[in-house]
Amino acid sequence: MSGTSLDGIDVAIVEIRGRGLETIGFQTTAYSARLRARLLKPEHSREISRLNFELGELYAEAVLRAVRSYGPVELIGCHGQTIYHEGGKHTLQIGEAAVIAERTGVPVVSNFRAGDIAAGGQGAPLVPYVDYLLFRHPKRTRIALNIGGIANITAIPPAAAPEQVIAFDTGPGNMVIDALAQEFSNGKLRCDRDGRIAGSGKPDVRLLDLLLRDRYYRQRPPKSTGREEYGAEFVQRMKQSGLPMRDLIATATALTARSIALAVREIQRRAAEPGAIRISPVDLIVSGGGVHNPRIMGMLAGYLPGVAISTSTDHGIGADAKEAIAFAVLAHETWRRHPSNLPSATGARHAAILGSITLGGVRK
Amino acid sequence: MSGTSLDGIDVAIVEIRGRGLETIGFQTTAYSARLRARLLKPEHSREISRLNFELGELYAEAVLRAVRSYGPVELIGCHGQTIYHEGGKHTLQIGEAAVIAERTGVPVVSNFRAGDIAAGGQGAPLVPYVDYLLFRHPKRTRIALNIGGIANITAIPPAAAPEQVIAFDTGPGNMVIDALAQEFSNGKLRCDRDGRIAGSGKPDVRLLDLLLRDRYYRQRPPKSTGREEYGAEFVQRMKQSGLPMRDLIATATALTARSIALAVREIQRRAAEPGAIRISPVDLIVSGGGVHNPRIMGMLAGYLPGVAISTSTDHGIGADAKEAIAFAVLAHETWRRHPSNLPSATGARHAAILGSITLGGVRK
Repeated sequence: MSGTSLDGIDVAIVEIRGRGLETIGFQTTAYSARLRARLLKPEHSREISRLNFELGELYAEAVLRAVRSYGPVELIGCHGQTIYHEGGKHTLQIGEAAVIAERTGVPVVSNFRAGDIAAGGQGAPLVPYVDYLLFRHPKRTRIALNIGGIANITAIPPAAAPEQVIAFDTGPGNMVIDALAQEFSNGKLRCDRDGRIAGSGKPDVRLLDLLLRDRYYRQRPPKSTGREEYGAEFVQRMKQSGLPMRDLIATATALTARSIALAVREIQRRAAEPGAIRISPVDLIVSGGGVHNPRIMGMLAGYLPGVAISTSTDHGIGADAKEAIAFAVLAHETWRRHPSNLPSATGARHAAILGSITLGGVRK
Repeated sequence: MSGTSLDGIDVAIVEIRGRGLETIGFQTTAYSARLRARLLKPEHSREISRLNFELGELYAEAVLRAVRSYGPVELIGCHGQTIYHEGGKHTLQIGEAAVIAERTGVPVVSNFRAGDIAAGGQGAPLVPYVDYLLFRHPKRTRIALNIGGIANITAIPPAAAPEQVIAFDTGPGNMVIDALAQEFSNGKLRCDRDGRIAGSGKPDVRLLDLLLRDRYYRQRPPKSTGREEYGAEFVQRMKQSGLPMRDLIATATALTARSIALAVREIQRRAAEPGAIRISPVDLIVSGGGVHNPRIMGMLAGYLPGVAISTSTDHGIGADAKEAIAFAVLAHETWRRHPSNLPSATGARHAAILGSITLGGVRK
């Protein structure tokens, strides 16, 4: 897995047997600053063609390093690096699968998003299908929450059918906090480690209320948001309040927690609508970088009494490894010829077998 | 098949049963002038992402049109449109397979060249493997000649093993003739139809000898050439001779035929080297646009006494449809998990299963 944060490559090695999944190992390889800069805005077809093969080599190296640590694999799932994505219209991920297959001798499934877009979907989110496979419970409502740059949730009613799953972005995750922390530390920090800076300031109630008035938080799903909404411009608007930096970071942290809590409560409210036989207990299962921020986790607990909060690690799915694990599961589904998009989450007209299978490296 | 000439989309429908192949139908869909212009130099990642999906739609439409004419298909092979190719280094073909699979409901094999490059090859030529399957003969030397923009041959000794096949570009095919004919007609003609202009002039022996002195024609294979060598600059150099346009076109036509004949004779000479038990009879099987130029075909017959000249159409493989047929065969090989590059032709370290399989449109 390589995310839009352009951090680098996450490799998760998992063993799938029937409906069981075990994580064998997880490793991260950072991109060089130079590569990150090239990936940020690759123009020219020659540069894209070149990066496609260079990334293929890097992915192969990352896989081979993990294999040396944890043993051989039978199938590789590769998300690739998104070069362009316009939900519902077109998408371009690079990182040549043929290179990975050649270097590793293992078949590769790649290019997962195109199939959902071709079927009329947004091409995202794709992880909810995996949340559904991993966390569905016969009697409990499961809400999988991933706090990455953006925070998103997958809500799975008790014993849900695939079409009952709801998934959407709740709003900012770590993106705004990270940007403020970097500025606060003159670039020394990449994030507010352990929520320490937020802990030294206090959230400004008026600014927080103002930010929460954004209609996005009340919009009905499916909905999605991104760097366009919570990037540099948003940070600039927060700074215009004139508040001290520590208070801004505390406020951004509260915004993340509050907007997540609003979404969870909305799901609970809907589950309790007339006709619902009984209100099922809710488990909030958190993953992504945000689990390491005790202030976010603490606020969530405060805002959501009665909701059982755990991390995905508690359920055997490492909180940092979850996205990478998800693409291993998606690759396995494709290999088995199972469709693996959730139309209720992506808006596709129907489920589709996602991705392309490249056998190249497989000798006869 | 979509070639680098950016003409449009060739669809061949073939039936493959065991080692037998039958062409069911062949159709051509031209690109619009606007699309051709966009494909000529797509910069910006957004434009490439967009073209990737737009071409996918066009390919799907072209396939569906052929299916309406000739009946359903079980597998689609799609070469895609080359956006960038640097032999031995990297390559980028677009035309999203997931879109084709979605619209047609048929699995797609695409992206054939990457696997050969990943295995250390040039990513081209790929058709020689198909020539080998189609034309190999127990007692005769088969030379498959394709006269496209560039002319290339595949030489297959009697009862050859794959590693005995030699394939290379012989030099210009129609590229120089076409460029001169377009200029001669002020853009009204795209080619010298039926070799009429060449027939009204006469080849200049001195210019022809000068052009043939290029060391490329004596270089040992594997070798390849392209638009870089026989493009606008080459045409300009020919015009500096001051010869009348009709004679230039006649000379360019003779250059194509002579350089092909030189290559065929070199193959015959090598086959007759000490140790060769006996000289096998040679069949020259011609395909590509050049078969429609009676001057080229006539000169080849004149230059190559003792060589039996036929068109691929005589062997059941339509001369215009051959490249498209080849990618149907390559797709079928990949579907059966057979490697389908010829390392002796591409320079790859080993044979590889080419391309990626996209099932997307296949409902469970």
